Amino acid sequence: MQFEEIRQKAYAANMQLPQLGLVLFTFGNASEADREKGVFAIKPSGVAYEELTPEKMVVVDFDGNTVDGVLRPSSDTKTHAVLYKHWKAIGGIVHTHSTYATAWAQSQKEIPILGTTHADYNIVNVPCALPMDDEMIKGDYEAQTGFQIIHHFKQHGLDYNEVEMILVGNHAPFTWGKNASRAVHNSAVLEQVAKMAYITLQINPQAPQLKKALIEKHYQRKHGPNSYYGQ
Amino acid sequence: MQFEEIRQKAYAANMQLPQLGLVLFTFGNASEADREKGVFAIKPSGVAYEELTPEKMVVVDFDGNTVDGVLRPSSDTKTHAVLYKHWKAIGGIVHTHSTYATAWAQSQKEIPILGTTHADYNIVNVPCALPMDDEMIKGDYEAQTGFQIIHHFKQHGLDYNEVEMILVGNHAPFTWGKNASRAVHNSAVLEQVAKMAYITLQINPQAPQLKKALIEKHYQRKHGPNSYYGQ
Amino acid sequence: MQFEEIRQKAYAANMQLPQLGLVLFTFGNASEADREKGVFAIKPSGVAYEELTPEKMVVVDFDGNTVDGVLRPSSDTKTHAVLYKHWKAIGGIVHTHSTYATAWAQSQKEIPILGTTHADYNIVNVPCALPMDDEMIKGDYEAQTGFQIIHHFKQHGLDYNEVEMILVGNHAPFTWGKNASRAVHNSAVLEQVAKMAYITLQINPQAPQLKKALIEKHYQRKHGPNSYYGQ
Amino acid sequence: MQFEEIRQKAYAANMQLPQLGLVLFTFGNASEADREKGVFAIKPSGVAYEELTPEKMVVVDFDGNTVDGVLRPSSDTKTHAVLYKHWKAIGGIVHTHSTYATAWAQSQKEIPILGTTHADYNIVNVPCALPMDDEMIKGDYEAQTGFQIIHHFKQHGLDYNEVEMILVGNHAPFTWGKNASRAVHNSAVLEQVAKMAYITLQINPQAPQLKKALIEKHYQRKHGPNSYYGQ
Repeated sequence: MQFEEIRQKAYAANMQLPQLGLVLFTFGNASEADREKGVFAIKPSGVAYEELTPEKMVVVDFDGNTVDGVLRPSSDTKTHAVLYKHWKAIGGIVHTHSTYATAWAQSQKEIPILGTTHADYNIVNVPCALPMDDEMIKGDYEAQTGFQIIHHFKQHGLDYNEVEMILVGNHAPFTWGKNASRAVHNSAVLEQVAKMAYITLQINPQAPQLKKALIEKHYQRKHGPNSYYGQ
Repeated sequence: MQFEEIRQKAYAANMQLPQLGLVLFTFGNASEADREKGVFAIKPSGVAYEELTPEKMVVVDFDGNTVDGVLRPSSDTKTHAVLYKHWKAIGGIVHTHSTYATAWAQSQKEIPILGTTHADYNIVNVPCALPMDDEMIKGDYEAQTGFQIIHHFKQHGLDYNEVEMILVGNHAPFTWGKNASRAVHNSAVLEQVAKMAYITLQINPQAPQLKKALIEKHYQRKHGPNSYYGQ
Repeated sequence: MQFEEIRQKAYAANMQLPQLGLVLFTFGNASEADREKGVFAIKPSGVAYEELTPEKMVVVDFDGNTVDGVLRPSSDTKTHAVLYKHWKAIGGIVHTHSTYATAWAQSQKEIPILGTTHADYNIVNVPCALPMDDEMIKGDYEAQTGFQIIHHFKQHGLDYNEVEMILVGNHAPFTWGKNASRAVHNSAVLEQVAKMAYITLQINPQAPQLKKALIEKHYQRKHGPNSYYGQ
Repeated sequence: MQFEEIRQKAYAANMQLPQLGLVLFTFGNASEADREKGVFAIKPSGVAYEELTPEKMVVVDFDGNTVDGVLRPSSDTKTHAVLYKHWKAIGGIVHTHSTYATAWAQSQKEIPILGTTHADYNIVNVPCALPMDDEMIKGDYEAQTGFQIIHHFKQHGLDYNEVEMILVGNHAPFTWGKNASRAVHNSAVLEQVAKMAYITLQINPQAPQLKKALIEKHYQRKHGPNSYYGQ
């Protein structure tokens, strides 16, 4: 089997999605890139998780052309391709329609940073890109979704190495990371942060943003140069 | 065993309902039709899912008369019969009292189309038929429920081949499709769409409808003549 | 083993409570009565469900005195005893702190009848008894809880054979029926009805009560003299 | 293996956290103290629950210095240490980011005592400590979190033997008890109480506090000198 390593990793990441309660039926996909070979392995379109195997993963280049595999790749493949092509440091991408993150995307609102759980991952609100112009939608829609994400990060001065998640307005979340496993982790954290922010604002619509000192502290202890979280 | 194929399919579809978390106790039923023989197999009334077998399915004609089987068919049988009789292209029907879809039915509101998850299935709001007049309720209630659904579709210019689900006001959802398995799929999607729409409007009561270009794009890429979703 | 039948039935009913997601730790109890012998078997107090056995059930008379068994009976035993003593036709009682039903009890509101799922069981709102006077609380509290329930039914002209559930304000739900198994069933239905009513009113605070004709129809088709639900 | 007993108990308590649905990934930790030896065993930092063993627990003194173990202890270790050092009667501590309790912490509100489920554990609202001053956050943050908790109890005249839980504003809950197992139990109860209070106030924003007589009765029957709950 060619591209065995990324096929195995993409397969494992995809299989985690239903286990973590992040997808219903086939509403999600994960991919793992091989930067040296300039390709990534992604879920085939519309195939049920219980029927997936590493062999069924489709290997695609960063322009979205199939390089290896007999099945049609995920309909979201071009979004993955655009992100891999422009963001050179990422090795994995996940897209889901997980319940609470998708509800925030549908509400077209950023998820405000309300607590340390959020700050352990991001020092800003979870960004929400607005829906695209009609022409982009009618054009190369999935590629445009990738550009929409990249554009939003540029416009708002965000660094994709620090903020590994976004909501696409009216649509659903995308997450990424150094590999597919990390991207899956980020998807699960995003869903939990989205759920807790929702409940928090139901309890107290005036709940304040997390104070700056706490944002800094929690993010730095996990990700800063003097981090002391983990082994 | 007579009518083995539709008994097997109706049985399998019914068994999926508790597995997908769509029914409590016996609050739901699925049926599968054989168009050539003019009959459908449906769950027997009030029998627990764990006691079901293909043999226990009841085979009924499109006027609701039992053709084969010793048990009494679902109390909702006549609703199924009316839909099969008038909508010639459907091969499966499911009725549940799933939590979020039923809550929308009880609230007597359509589920607004707020995101692409919804647009992957419907290009309109999920319709909600108003409760019937008292005379219809006191009359042949279950048959009238079928007519109420058909009437609602006619009145609102909806095509049952495009919109495979409805909420019956104060009651609960019905879904259908080319077979029972597809109708079950639609029930699960409806429940998820109902849950996400509920959360979305809690987060942002002014959440906008999905824009037209996105509705078209998502529906067409999955169901249009040039669809590119799935294998 | 004496009183084997009611011990077995009370045991089986208690074990269903965690399986149906109705209790956390030991926050619930079920009992089954033997009307001829004038006793009922009930869960021992504070014993984890995973350690229960039929032998550990405590057999108590209708005044709350232990007749057989070495463990201390549930702290709610006197509530059960009072209900059995005054409502001669019931054979099983269940008390839980299930999430949504308890939230309604804490909100001190009846659960309005908003749909057919509710009407399949009750033709009225699920009643909610107000908290007791301080003297009653300081007195024989658990027995008074029983009298509070009976008093509420009398005062509101309710029939315990038709309405098999109540919320005790600030506290939690009690359900009953011809036996413990039926009382467990009613507890699960109550929790589901409570959850759906909550979501319905969040979606539409002006959601109307179910219309009279539908209440009658659904209740009668399941419980009336010409009922046609079940086998 | 040194300190085997507390390692075993801390391990068992940590393993209960995912089983009770109280943690996602590594978002929580439990510890068990040995008062004679002046140490406690705590989860290692960032290690997945499925990879934990009693050997991997880290034994730390009440100043937060590692006494035994090769892994780095939880990043929250100093909070545990401060609480053990100042509150001499506790033998176990748990910290989670459980969904509903964390949402209350993020909303910076006490959880009001609305029902008997709450009163079975606390006779007051679940306290919520405000976020710390910036200097404390920038200083020895985790130790300061411990002092913040202790300070809040002193300032509000609370007794840590009676109230075994607190929300740390913007952060998440801490619970404690005579041992780690009890602290886990308290975490699960807190999460359930938090969820029910949230739903209650959604149903009825004017839901009244539990009346004094009921608070007293429920707490005393479970914890008072004449308690009659349990065996």
